[in-house]
Amino acid sequence: MHPFTRIPAQAVSALGEEKLIAEIRRWLGRASPRAPFGIGDDCAVLPPSRGRQLITVDPVIYGQHFDDEVPPRAVGAKLFKRNLSDLAAMGGRPTAGVLALTLDAGVSRKWLEEFYRGLAACARKHRVMIVGGDVAQSDGVVAASLTLLGEAAGERVVTRQGARVGDRIYVTGRLGNSLRSRHHFRFSPRLAEGAWLAAHLGVRAMMDVSDGLAKDLRALTPRAGLAALDPSSIPRRAGATLKSALSDGEDYELAFAFDRRADAGAFEQKWRRAFPRTPLTLIGRFVCAGKAPAGSVDLAQFHGYEHLDAFRKPADRRRGRVLS
Amino acid sequence: MHPFTRIPAQAVSALGEEKLIAEIRRWLGRASPRAPFGIGDDCAVLPPSRGRQLITVDPVIYGQHFDDEVPPRAVGAKLFKRNLSDLAAMGGRPTAGVLALTLDAGVSRKWLEEFYRGLAACARKHRVMIVGGDVAQSDGVVAASLTLLGEAAGERVVTRQGARVGDRIYVTGRLGNSLRSRHHFRFSPRLAEGAWLAAHLGVRAMMDVSDGLAKDLRALTPRAGLAALDPSSIPRRAGATLKSALSDGEDYELAFAFDRRADAGAFEQKWRRAFPRTPLTLIGRFVCAGKAPAGSVDLAQFHGYEHLDAFRKPADRRRGRVLS
Repeated sequence: MHPFTRIPAQAVSALGEEKLIAEIRRWLGRASPRAPFGIGDDCAVLPPSRGRQLITVDPVIYGQHFDDEVPPRAVGAKLFKRNLSDLAAMGGRPTAGVLALTLDAGVSRKWLEEFYRGLAACARKHRVMIVGGDVAQSDGVVAASLTLLGEAAGERVVTRQGARVGDRIYVTGRLGNSLRSRHHFRFSPRLAEGAWLAAHLGVRAMMDVSDGLAKDLRALTPRAGLAALDPSSIPRRAGATLKSALSDGEDYELAFAFDRRADAGAFEQKWRRAFPRTPLTLIGRFVCAGKAPAGSVDLAQFHGYEHLDAFRKPADRRRGRVLS
Repeated sequence: MHPFTRIPAQAVSALGEEKLIAEIRRWLGRASPRAPFGIGDDCAVLPPSRGRQLITVDPVIYGQHFDDEVPPRAVGAKLFKRNLSDLAAMGGRPTAGVLALTLDAGVSRKWLEEFYRGLAACARKHRVMIVGGDVAQSDGVVAASLTLLGEAAGERVVTRQGARVGDRIYVTGRLGNSLRSRHHFRFSPRLAEGAWLAAHLGVRAMMDVSDGLAKDLRALTPRAGLAALDPSSIPRRAGATLKSALSDGEDYELAFAFDRRADAGAFEQKWRRAFPRTPLTLIGRFVCAGKAPAGSVDLAQFHGYEHLDAFRKPADRRRGRVLS
C-alpha cells in the first residue's frame, strides 16, 4: 500500500493535529493509557522501575525499511519488533514506549491507521504501553522512531562484551534472503530465547544479527581474536547464498558466545527441549588472530549493511532500498 | 550554516557508519558513558529509577525547526532544550536521553560535529547522559529526535489537568515574535521555575507554551470553562503584536492555573524573590463559558501552530518553515 494519497480529504492533514492525536489514541486502543500516564500531557509519567532499565531506539523510514509492498500493519509491527529484537539480545523484556512520527501532509489516514493498528496489536501482545509521542511534518517523509524501555527478564543482562578466545559461536534461526522472503517484516523477535539464554551463565556475550553476521560478529569478537566460521554450518534461509547469509542484514536472530569450558552438549539438549521449533546452530569459534583453521570463512571479504552509503547517483538515491 | 556539502570527502558518508559512531562518541565526550551504560550495545542500561519517571520525545527537522540561519550548535542545543521545556512543565528534571538521527548521506561532518557539540554542552550543563541512539539514512532529510527521561524534581508532578473555574492564569516570560528575535533557539527552558512552581500546591495545572498560547491554553482550560484573558496584560516580546504573542508558538514559557482560594499576592512576592529576572504575569482567569468579561480576548479568533498543515502548493512546500 502506498502511504500517500492524492485526495486532500483522505490525507492526515485534513484531520488537523488535534483530531489526528485523538485518532491515534483510538487506533492504539488499550495500548494507550490515559494521561498523565500516557498521551496528552507535556511528558508521560511512568511507574518506578523494578531494577536496572534497558532503553533502545530504532526507526522505520519509507524507502529504507519499507516500501509499498509491505502492508502498513506490518510496518507498524516491524517498528515494534525491531526494538524488541534489541531487548531480546540483552535478555530483556519491554515495558513502555514512545513514538516520534514524521509525516508528509499527504500521507493517507488509512495508511496511518493501519500502521498504528499493527503497532498496537504487537504492543498488546507484549503488554507494552505506548505512553507518548510526537507528530511532526516534513515534506516527502514517512518515518517513525520508537523508543522502547525495558527491564531484565531475569537477574542478568547480557552485553556484547565478554567473549573469549576458544568460545563457541552460536546463532538462532536461519540467515539471509530476508528481503525477498519477506522475513524482514514477518520475523518474530527472539524475546523468549534471549531471556532463556541470559539465564545460562555459559552464554558470555550476545547480540542481535540485524546488519549481517559478517559485520555484526565484529562487535562480539574478543580483542586479538577472530571469528572462525565453518562455511558449511551457516544456517541459511531458503534461497540464501552464503554471501546473503553473511551480508544481507535484517535477520533479527541472536548470535552469542558460549563459554569454551561449559558443557555444550547438555546446553544444546536443553535448548531443543525449550525451543523445539527454533534452530540453534554452532557455526564456529573465536580463535587467536591468524589461527583460523583452513577452510574457515574469511569474514573480511563480506560486508554487512552500511547505514550510511557513499554518495549515490541521484537516480539511485530516488529508487531507495528496503533493508536496514 | 548549510547542513549539506557537495564535497564527498567532507560528507558523513565518507566516514562510514562505524567511524561515524566513534566520532559521535568523541563529540559527545563526557555526555556519553561507556557501554553497557551507553552507546555501543543493543540497548543502553540505566540505573533503577528513584521514583516515578517522566518521558518525553521531540524532534528538530531541517526546514521545520531550523534552517541555514541557525548555527548547528544552536540546533543541537534547541533539540535538547525543547525536551527540557516539556520536563519543566511538569516540575521535572532530566536524567538520560537517547537520540535517533536521520541523515542524508551528503550532510557535512562539520555540521554534524557542531550539532553534537551543542547538544553535548547542553547535556553536560544539565548533567544528563546521552546513553544511546540510532543513525539511519534518508535522502534529503536532516532530522534528530531526542527521547528524554526524567524524574520529579520534588515530590509532585504537575499535569495539565486540575484547573478550575475561578483560577488565575499566569505565564512566565514574554510571548511572540520567537522566530525573528531568534528566541526559538536562544531560549532557556524554565526548569528551575517549573520545579519551584510544582512545589507550590496553589499551582494546580501547568504546561509549556510551545504552539502559541491561544492553542495551548485549551489543554489547561477546565470543562465548561473558558480562559478569559485581558489583552493588555499579555506580556509581549519586543516586536510582538497581540496576534503574534497568542499564535506564533516556540515561546517555551510556562502557563499555569493558580488556585482562586490561594494567596496570589504572597505567591507573586515569593516568585520575585526566587526569580527576580523572570517576569511572571497574571493574564486572566478561567471563567464559566459565556461569562467572559467585556473586552476579554476572543481566543477562538486566534490559531496556534498546526503541526500538520493542509496541503500546500509544491512551491510553498519546498520553501519550508522554521517554527514548530
